[in-house]
Amino acid sequence: MNRAKLIQAIRTKKSFLCIGLDTDIEKIPAHLLEQEDPIYAFNKAIIDATSDLCVAYKPNTAFYESRGPQGWETLRKTWAALPKDCLSIADAKRGDIGNTSNMYAKAFFDEKSSGMGFDAITVAPYMGHDSVKPFLDYPEKWTIVLALTSNPGGLDFQLTADRETGKTLYQQVIEKVNSWGTPENTMYVVGATRGELFSEIRRHAPNHFLLVPGVGAQGGSLQDVCRFGLNNDVGLLVNATRSIIYASSGEDFAEKAREEALSLQQEMARILEEYEIINSGD
Amino acid sequence: MNRAKLIQAIRTKKSFLCIGLDTDIEKIPAHLLEQEDPIYAFNKAIIDATSDLCVAYKPNTAFYESRGPQGWETLRKTWAALPKDCLSIADAKRGDIGNTSNMYAKAFFDEKSSGMGFDAITVAPYMGHDSVKPFLDYPEKWTIVLALTSNPGGLDFQLTADRETGKTLYQQVIEKVNSWGTPENTMYVVGATRGELFSEIRRHAPNHFLLVPGVGAQGGSLQDVCRFGLNNDVGLLVNATRSIIYASSGEDFAEKAREEALSLQQEMARILEEYEIINSGD
Repeated sequence: MNRAKLIQAIRTKKSFLCIGLDTDIEKIPAHLLEQEDPIYAFNKAIIDATSDLCVAYKPNTAFYESRGPQGWETLRKTWAALPKDCLSIADAKRGDIGNTSNMYAKAFFDEKSSGMGFDAITVAPYMGHDSVKPFLDYPEKWTIVLALTSNPGGLDFQLTADRETGKTLYQQVIEKVNSWGTPENTMYVVGATRGELFSEIRRHAPNHFLLVPGVGAQGGSLQDVCRFGLNNDVGLLVNATRSIIYASSGEDFAEKAREEALSLQQEMARILEEYEIINSGD
Repeated sequence: MNRAKLIQAIRTKKSFLCIGLDTDIEKIPAHLLEQEDPIYAFNKAIIDATSDLCVAYKPNTAFYESRGPQGWETLRKTWAALPKDCLSIADAKRGDIGNTSNMYAKAFFDEKSSGMGFDAITVAPYMGHDSVKPFLDYPEKWTIVLALTSNPGGLDFQLTADRETGKTLYQQVIEKVNSWGTPENTMYVVGATRGELFSEIRRHAPNHFLLVPGVGAQGGSLQDVCRFGLNNDVGLLVNATRSIIYASSGEDFAEKAREEALSLQQEMARILEEYEIINSGD
């Protein structure tokens, strides 16, 4: 899914919601445990109940890997169940030397090799250019690089300023990645809990899409993120996970997930109108 | 495998060699392609031919993931085939927010959950303390944190110096991780291509083991690494991958791999004697 199609999906659905599929066998409703593949059954129900309200899904690879080879098969089936009008993001935080990142790109982008062809992958920048560029070699795919993350540990290294330039680590990451890719094939992860820094990030990456976790369970504010983060092409994918997928632990989990997603989508539609990014008559 | 056992294995085998299992279906001998699981057959033959010469094996997860669920099953079988007197390292470069790193720890450390119970995992530090600490919660397991990597992109961010303290990013990583773990449960990845920086690294981490990739195909020198990197407990695991596992592309691949591993082990034994870390009569 390229940038034009993503923007079109956002305008059509009046939503820039991404739903995280961090599906934990210990948190899904008990009645699903009778299914052959309970996590897949859960994901499929969530997807079916929400796909008109969001523009992206983001399975978190850790939750699948924790269950070994069978979890990886669940991940593959989940990818296959994602609707084509939603961006599919492998939240994998990968990154290694060039020949290894090549293999990670195959794992998540090359369906012939791995059985999965995600549209996008999250990548950790610590190892620099040759760890990121192999992902950029795939046409019509997205590399979403960690910049400023939403977790407490995000402050340990990402805000340290360079002695010569004064630029913080996350600014250096954005500047370098800007020179390796384009707003057509790269995005940045910026946590919603860092609302006050969105305007600064927009100075460094005015045109890029930002993938924004941390709304909901992690405490970030959608209003703050939008005030400083929106651009003329929207430029935001705001992720919610636990507040949606675990909205209910009962048999009504998918229905309740839809209610939560609908509430966020409606807030997003209001914001898009308020900032005149879409017209109410669109 | 705890630190005392690792040091004992090094002294017994007169080796601090780690063999990387970055096994690529396109590079293994043609006759193996008839096997039901050619990559596992390759790995098993390499392990059987070299396990008395090395103290660690390091499967690189990317190469297994690139083949989807079946690759993940090959990884599990490979882990199960590793001898108990060798440290098993999942070279995974993982790291994410706390609840996600918890899941990655389950994936690689918790056999009941994933079918795999590696002794150690490589972790990327960009997301800070809550991305690293979940791995440290497992007793008798090792967390091997990226510090100064061997690849060209290692220079993009790891050597930038902090404005206030003058400390480079990799020094900051070592200092922080020193405060989260101990030399009993953490190691650092330091590339062999950075030989001149080993003495500086030893000032910051005098007692830690260092996992050192980059000898062989990447051009690092074992002599340089040892001159500046050895400590009284040896303190080094030097990894070689391509020079060993792809020493021959014929039916003699395991035999040739053994010859390469033996050559490195003999050089290591000489070095350990030269620096009087083991006695020739040991």
